[in-house]
Amino acid sequence: MAEPVFKRLALLGVGLIGSSVARIAMERGDIAGEIVANARTQATLDRVMELGIAHRVELDPAKAVEGADCVMLCAPVGAYAALAEAIAPYLMPGAVLTDVGSTKQSVIRDVGPLVPEGVHFVPAHPMAGTEHSGPDAGFSTLFQGRWTLVVPIPGTDEAANEKVCELWRRCGSMIEIMEPAHHDRVVAIVSHLPHLIAFTICGTADDLEDESRQQVLRFAAAGFRDFTRIAASDPAMWRDVFLNNREALLEMLARFMEDAQAMARAVRWGDPSYIEESIKRGRKIRRSLIELKQA
Amino acid sequence: MAEPVFKRLALLGVGLIGSSVARIAMERGDIAGEIVANARTQATLDRVMELGIAHRVELDPAKAVEGADCVMLCAPVGAYAALAEAIAPYLMPGAVLTDVGSTKQSVIRDVGPLVPEGVHFVPAHPMAGTEHSGPDAGFSTLFQGRWTLVVPIPGTDEAANEKVCELWRRCGSMIEIMEPAHHDRVVAIVSHLPHLIAFTICGTADDLEDESRQQVLRFAAAGFRDFTRIAASDPAMWRDVFLNNREALLEMLARFMEDAQAMARAVRWGDPSYIEESIKRGRKIRRSLIELKQA
Repeated sequence: MAEPVFKRLALLGVGLIGSSVARIAMERGDIAGEIVANARTQATLDRVMELGIAHRVELDPAKAVEGADCVMLCAPVGAYAALAEAIAPYLMPGAVLTDVGSTKQSVIRDVGPLVPEGVHFVPAHPMAGTEHSGPDAGFSTLFQGRWTLVVPIPGTDEAANEKVCELWRRCGSMIEIMEPAHHDRVVAIVSHLPHLIAFTICGTADDLEDESRQQVLRFAAAGFRDFTRIAASDPAMWRDVFLNNREALLEMLARFMEDAQAMARAVRWGDPSYIEESIKRGRKIRRSLIELKQA
Repeated sequence: MAEPVFKRLALLGVGLIGSSVARIAMERGDIAGEIVANARTQATLDRVMELGIAHRVELDPAKAVEGADCVMLCAPVGAYAALAEAIAPYLMPGAVLTDVGSTKQSVIRDVGPLVPEGVHFVPAHPMAGTEHSGPDAGFSTLFQGRWTLVVPIPGTDEAANEKVCELWRRCGSMIEIMEPAHHDRVVAIVSHLPHLIAFTICGTADDLEDESRQQVLRFAAAGFRDFTRIAASDPAMWRDVFLNNREALLEMLARFMEDAQAMARAVRWGDPSYIEESIKRGRKIRRSLIELKQA
């Protein structure tokens, strides 16, 4: 077995992502010698011990990070600033501080200034997930063949960046290095906007008068069912994502709304070729995804 | 084996739906004694014979319907008026004329006036589909456990309505009787609007400057991938659906756009509880679907 990447990995948060990392690290043994889990409630930590996915649990984040050479923030991004403030004095010199948040500019803005000198901050974002949440939702193949976007901060120790990349490679992930602003735009369109739309259309359906709503549930064809699957995701996590990727998300939403209005106009005024061309573009993107083996 | 529902079934169109009906009818033998397939091109009909999913093919729709006691329109709904006009003089007295279109008010408007006296017109809509199209895309389990919405016209022979219901039951479908206007509203929200949104967001992504578009394809997370799957559906079929369910689709789209604007406002002005409540409604709908075993 290869040398573990870290001696002690502290996971602050053990939801879908954190508990998947914990499972993989426990199974493989070459990610960290010791896994320490922290969560907001003792009940969650009890469950973590029951599941056997950490060596040790700590309700106090400050205690969880003591002596850890890698600390990974796995909470909703809106909780990062308070978490960083709580742990900053206890971070070990030379430790790597990383995260798994879906927004990167906000994480650098919120956490960056609190990182003590001598601690290496390496923001990252594993692009994997399901609509389930909590420590029971994780599984050890979650990151297999998926991308982790690593967003290094200029001037950070190269060895620290590389250790984070190696951790994700051992989780089964492919690595891409990206600029923070570019990261936030890309995820706004591939992930945040689709989620916002899925949440919204479920609300629109829920607002229909009672008889129609019952029928909607009954006759949910493939189209709507896929939307509700996305829409079943964790509310606190997504609330934080939307609020922390505001600019990019609002820009992509505005572009989408313009395009939807143009489609509405084509439907109202009966412009078959506009509608058909719009549909054909969807097919083209789908075909590209299949060629890239992402579908 | 039960007596076949019909002696001769003529399928006008052998795409995903038509070719699935053909496969089931050929396999079971108790839907119709003879299956005749019609399509716009000889190449499609040659493929139908290669696949062995019809007893006979006819390039001329008038010839295809001669002597058929059931004629099923399985073309895009925009082609129905011309098809109905072409076949009307050749329909056998006492025959059942039915269809599988996703819109029902437009079908009744376009086809109804052309149906000769003595022919029983029974509009129907099997709510099943995939993103694939053409005679190769069909399969014999497509309708298993899915709903077929039957939209009878007042005054139509009850025996004819029942025969169409029985055909769909033998295809594995559950039956629901519905009014045309109500049908069009329900499918606008559960199917047509989700498709319009999926086509639109794929176009929005395709319009991004080249570097971002490449990244979009590369990093298409679960959210976007589901949208592209829906968006890969048949352009001509969906163009016709949108144009023929204009009023209901535009109303549902307008409701959705208002809700999306409200969400945008909550993101812009930082209203976490509004966002969280909206997300929770998505979960609620999802849970209802799971309880109804539609997810």
